[in-house]
This record gives sequence, structure tokens and C-alpha cells, in this order.
Amino acid sequence: MLVELINTGTELMLGRVLNTHQQWICRKLADLGYVVTRQTAVPDTGIDIRQAVMEALSRADLVITTGGLGPTSDDITRDLVAQMLGKGLKEDPEVLAHIRHFFERLRRPMPVRTGIQAMVPEGALVLPNPHGTAPGLAIEVRPNPYRAGGAAAWLVMLPGPPRELRPMFADSVVPLLKRVLPLASPFVCRTLRTAGIGESVVQEKVAGPLAGAVGEGMDLGYCARPGQVDVRLAARGPGAERVVGEAEAIVQEVLGPQIYGIEDEEQETALVRLLASRSLTLALAESCTGGCIANRVTNVPGASAVLLAALVTYSNPAKETFLGVQAETLARHGAVSEPVAREMAEGARRQTRADYALSVTGIAGPGGGTPDKPVGTVFIGLAGPAGTVVEHRMNPWDRETFKQVTAQQALDLLRRTVARAPGN
Amino acid sequence: MLVELINTGTELMLGRVLNTHQQWICRKLADLGYVVTRQTAVPDTGIDIRQAVMEALSRADLVITTGGLGPTSDDITRDLVAQMLGKGLKEDPEVLAHIRHFFERLRRPMPVRTGIQAMVPEGALVLPNPHGTAPGLAIEVRPNPYRAGGAAAWLVMLPGPPRELRPMFADSVVPLLKRVLPLASPFVCRTLRTAGIGESVVQEKVAGPLAGAVGEGMDLGYCARPGQVDVRLAARGPGAERVVGEAEAIVQEVLGPQIYGIEDEEQETALVRLLASRSLTLALAESCTGGCIANRVTNVPGASAVLLAALVTYSNPAKETFLGVQAETLARHGAVSEPVAREMAEGARRQTRADYALSVTGIAGPGGGTPDKPVGTVFIGLAGPAGTVVEHRMNPWDRETFKQVTAQQALDLLRRTVARAPGN
Repeated sequence: MLVELINTGTELMLGRVLNTHQQWICRKLADLGYVVTRQTAVPDTGIDIRQAVMEALSRADLVITTGGLGPTSDDITRDLVAQMLGKGLKEDPEVLAHIRHFFERLRRPMPVRTGIQAMVPEGALVLPNPHGTAPGLAIEVRPNPYRAGGAAAWLVMLPGPPRELRPMFADSVVPLLKRVLPLASPFVCRTLRTAGIGESVVQEKVAGPLAGAVGEGMDLGYCARPGQVDVRLAARGPGAERVVGEAEAIVQEVLGPQIYGIEDEEQETALVRLLASRSLTLALAESCTGGCIANRVTNVPGASAVLLAALVTYSNPAKETFLGVQAETLARHGAVSEPVAREMAEGARRQTRADYALSVTGIAGPGGGTPDKPVGTVFIGLAGPAGTVVEHRMNPWDRETFKQVTAQQALDLLRRTVARAPGN
Repeated sequence: MLVELINTGTELMLGRVLNTHQQWICRKLADLGYVVTRQTAVPDTGIDIRQAVMEALSRADLVITTGGLGPTSDDITRDLVAQMLGKGLKEDPEVLAHIRHFFERLRRPMPVRTGIQAMVPEGALVLPNPHGTAPGLAIEVRPNPYRAGGAAAWLVMLPGPPRELRPMFADSVVPLLKRVLPLASPFVCRTLRTAGIGESVVQEKVAGPLAGAVGEGMDLGYCARPGQVDVRLAARGPGAERVVGEAEAIVQEVLGPQIYGIEDEEQETALVRLLASRSLTLALAESCTGGCIANRVTNVPGASAVLLAALVTYSNPAKETFLGVQAETLARHGAVSEPVAREMAEGARRQTRADYALSVTGIAGPGGGTPDKPVGTVFIGLAGPAGTVVEHRMNPWDRETFKQVTAQQALDLLRRTVARAPGN
């Protein structure tokens, strides 16, 4: 099965935006057992898109394009593909009604041009877009004029915005692939996500015990992100389920407490689920992370059952006013210190009556470091029913990475503590 | 001038890593006036890399590859290219000395295989790598066996790790390009960033007035992100500066207050700069955005001079405790209401003594909507020296987009208000 991905957009070629579609779609396809063999990005010009689509159709069984389905003059993929395949375009009344309804909900007039997104090439399947106005389109190119022998290919066109593309991929593209391009043999893939442990240590711990599974043809991969490492196990063929299952049990045994979730699950999602399942509440007191932890926790639907408040006390007076940190503690130890992290956590817990309160104070940089407390210094406090702990870490990265890694460490401290606590 | 970029790496095709090279290299080249016409990613297999390089050389004047220059068995680009071009490989004593010295500095024995990185194809220029062991390579392919007529092309091979590639690009590739592939005519590009206005409306407003510039050959493009739309103006030739300058003045006139910045600038960066330049301070009172605004503001270095505190009051008691919102207001109007947004903003301003306080309360979803206040309902309040305003918006998106768009609207309300206020 040959799969190609074409990302269209002049803004990609100008480096104005990061192409996150490549990683996301390649990852999703790889987890389903479809490996992308080539990815191409071209500008929004007819000649370039046409050439890229022609070449991909000459080689692949499945071609996925992203972008170029919107209402503006540089959105030309729909028309171009219809023309290339000799298909007429017809207005789809259901899509048009969806677009009208979309603008009604926004209480905005429907711009005339957006109606063009209801035009559908003859014979194309419409992939609904609940999060936007441009539907996705899927066409079976049969016979395929660009391929030797005319062997058929599927051409799937997806809209550019990730918040539209991602749910459409999960809800419409995956079922379509399973139906029209089923895999020849079973494929099983499992990702285990760890935090608080480096990539080389993960590798040292699991590579030996997994040697047998790898010998049986299992693919073992690692993926490191700020503060976390994923372990990916994949196998093909009739024994795939057994090999991956056994390998997963080995990784669970070896890395146990470091594993916070599987597949795509984020640390904060696992945490909200854990806290909610025990009816526990949380407060946050953030300084250097500046709301990063709160933002991640509140990305999880249902977070309001768990999070009572997050106090981003970015100044000393705010630490005193909202958390009751003592002026004397600030003066004696400085805002970035073990005692202040402790008072922040305890103050947040006292003020909100939450079961747990997590605090963070540190130096994100680029300025503000001293020989004693260099950029990257951070204290993470956790106040809970069993008392307060404070951890000292060094995260000497750029500002945004510092925030992400520190947030990850703080969430991990909380998860490990709650997981160890007697259930209730 | 046709430029192509080839990123090699099986891990890219599996979606294990994000291809940041594309954006980085495309952006650097675009700023120099070299626009990448096609980017391709292929796995680390000989047949795929060979095919991609051949195709690129058949079209482009400049081909840049990334990856495949290291010492491991899947690093095959160097050998493959030498073979394709019929060039022998010779050990370069200077490169070998650099590799030896590199390991001496690390006080580690030099692994035997790393010596292979000193092999240089005949006639290739060596691009030094002060941050790693694999040098970059540049070859003029003349005559070019893959191009009709044999027209020459430059092939530049860069190592995969970003911390090696980026300095090498700046120190070696840019001077090389200016020397061997100078631009034929001037190139000017300007991006204006807007917020609070949809992509179709932006286009409706600017397309007509810019018709003249487009007729003169100016390239007009749009790039939509949650809550913001960029307008990009680019032109080549002796009149480029004038055409883009006139077009920019037109866009400024038509979209004036909606423009928050130019080029890469983020809304929060423009805002922190604006507030800092007037010595104004800010407090935030976030409910449904859950720290998203605070997180964005604190991504900006120097935010601590502006932001005093952000109170993420995710529960009613927290709104009362930390912001002094009246229990009666909450009971009578509900937490998602104009009066609560008003009291949140005024409470945050009072408690922190900030010059401005921004508040947000709404329903992020997916749950919690009612017929009266559906998911996406949001009230944005701003308390400042001239009083308090509250805006009612509808952002019926998925949870994360809701937070981003709402944050964008809130930051934009603040920016417009401060920009209009009498300077101090």
C-alpha cells in the first residue's frame, strides 16, 4: 500500500506556518498500519498543485491533500482536481445548508464566496466538517489516467485548519480507509507514554527485555518530547496481537510508575480523570509557568469538576495578597526558593480548600538569573492531605520549553502522589 | 530561481518527529528572496532519496537536502549523491582533524564509524560544522545530467540536527547563495497581521483596493489562524519597494485598527510592548479560558514588567474569594453573564491595583450549554482608567479553539482600548 501526502499552501513555502499536518497525519496513518512513502509541499498555484497530484497519482494507492478547499481566491484544489479528472462540479444542497447554518450560529451574515465550498465534484464523497464550512472530499480515481495500467487510487482532500482536519480524519477518513483500502494483513500498534525519565534511560531499561519481540519482527521506537518519552510497539502479520501484547506487558513491568497513559493521552487528561474518579479537587499557584499548567489542565473537558482555581501570582504583592505568602519569607529567601514554593502551595490549598494544591516558582529566563539561582532554577511544591513536599529542578531551556517541561514535572509530581495515596 | 528542499528521514514518515526544518529553511530563504517551490520528505532508503534528488535536480536551480550525513547505517545521502553524480569520495584531512578534535574535547574515544563523515565527494565545498561532526556539503552539478539542456544546479547537503543545521545555514549557506546564485532583481515582502475579522471579510475589504497592485504583479496572500488573519504582500523587480509600500498603505487604511502587528509578531508580544512602553500594568481574571491568556502573555520575555497576576477562577467560590464577585450577582445572572464579567474585571483591578484588568467568562464546552447560553457564549470585560466595558461574543468551536479565539479577542479588546487611550 503506497500512500502519499500533499500539503498545499504558499504560506508553507514561505515558512510563515509550521506544517503540523505532516507529523499528525503520518503518525495517525502509521498507527493504523499505512506508512506514508512520500510527503510533498507545494504553493497554492495551479501548475504546482496539478503537478504534485499527477505525480502522486502515478505512484500511490492513496493520495491525501491538505488545504485549498476554503472560500478565498487561493483555494483552488477542489476546482483543479475536478478539472484534472474531467468531473463537473455540482452544488450540494446539504453542504450549502450546513454553511448557512454555520453562519447563523455565529450570528454573522454568510459571505457570498463561502457558498463555493458547497460545490462537489461528480462522484465524490462528502466528508462532513462539523468544525468549519469546507467539507472534505474523497474520490476514487478509476481508471487512473496517471498510473501505468490505470490502476485505481483514492484521492482524499482535507481542509487546512487543524481543528477541522483532525476530527474529520478520525470521523470520516479512518472509516473510509478501513472500508475501501483494507490492509492485507493485521497490524497492531501500541504507544505507552512515560514522564520523568530520559530517552536513553528508557532505552536502556526496555531494549534488553524486548529483544525477543524485536527478533520476532516487532518494530520498537522511541519519541522524546519536552519532559516525556513515548515507547511505540508495532507489528504486522497474524501474530501481531500476541507479540505486541507480550511486549506491552514487559514495558508495563519495567517502567510501571513512569507510564502515565497510552496512545495519544496527555498527562493532564490522565490526571483530571484520576482526580475526578476519586472526587478530589485541585488548586494551582503558578509563578514562572505563568498559567501554562492551568491552561493544560483546562484543555481537558470536565476539568471544572476538579480545578477550583489557579492563581498566577507573577509579582510578589500578588503572592502575598492571593496566597498569603509572608513578606518576610519573600525578603529572606527570595521569590524563587523552597520556602516560598511551600507557602504558595499551602496558601492556595488553604484559600480554596482544595484537596491538593500545586505550586511553581522559578526563573524562566532569558533574564533574571544569578550565579546562585541561574536561569532554569525551579521549585515545585505540592500540598495535600499528607503534608507538603517541594522538589528542586533545573530546566535550563528556552522560555517556552522551560514552561512546558516544568508543567510536565509538576503534573507528574501530582499524578505520582495521588496514585500512591490511599484510595477514597 | 527555482529552489527545492528535500527532508530525509524514516522517522518523519512515521510521524515520530515534527519537521521543523521546512518552516525554518523556507522562512530564511523567503526573507532572502529565494522562494522554495517544492518541499519533499522521503524515508532513509536509497531508492526514495535517489528518486527525490533526481526529480529536484531536473527542475531546480538550487536543491537543499537535510539529514543522512551522520555516521550510522541509515545515513546514506553523501554516498548516494556521489554515486549519482559519478564523483569519487576522498577523505578530507581537515574534516578528519575536526572530528578527532571534537571527540578529544568531549574526552571520549572517537568511534571508528564517525571517520566516514570526513569523506567528501570530488569537487564539493565543505561547509564547516562547529556544533557537530558531519560537515555540510555543496556541489555545483554542471553539466546537470537530470535537467533538459544540462543547465547547472547547486546541491547543498545539510546535517539533520537543528542545532547543527541552523548555524551552518547562517554562516556558510547564506554567503554561498549570495555568491553563486545572486538574485536577478530586488524582492520585497511584507506581512500585516490582523485580529477580530474573518478571512472572507478581510479579502472582501482589501481585494478591490489592491487590484491595481496585483495587476502590477504583486502577490497577495492570506493566512488564517484561530482569531487572526495575515495579509501578505510580495513583489519582485525594480518597482517592488514602491508597489508593496503603496499596497501596505492601502491595507493600513482599509483595515487600520484591526492590524496589530507586522511580520512574525504575535498579538501578546505587541501588547506587552505597548503596555511596557507606557508603563502600564495588567491583571487577568480568567474563567473559561483557564489560563490561556496568562500563558500567552507570559510567553513574552519581559512580561513580568506588565503582568501583576492572573486569577483563574474556575469555580464560583473562587470568583468570590479572589475577585470579590458578589454571591448575589452570581445567583441572579449566572457565572456566564455581563454583570459577572464586569465584577470580575473590576475586582481583579481593585485587588491588584493594575492599570487594566481583563476578564473572561463563558462556556468552552463540550458540556454546560443551555438554550439561553449555548456552548461558545462568552463575555469579555475590561476595566481601566476610563471605566469598564463588556463585550458579548459567540465562539462555538471545539474547546481548545474556543480558548485560543477568546484569548485573541480579549487581547485585541485590550490592545484597541490602550491604543486609543490618551498616551502617558
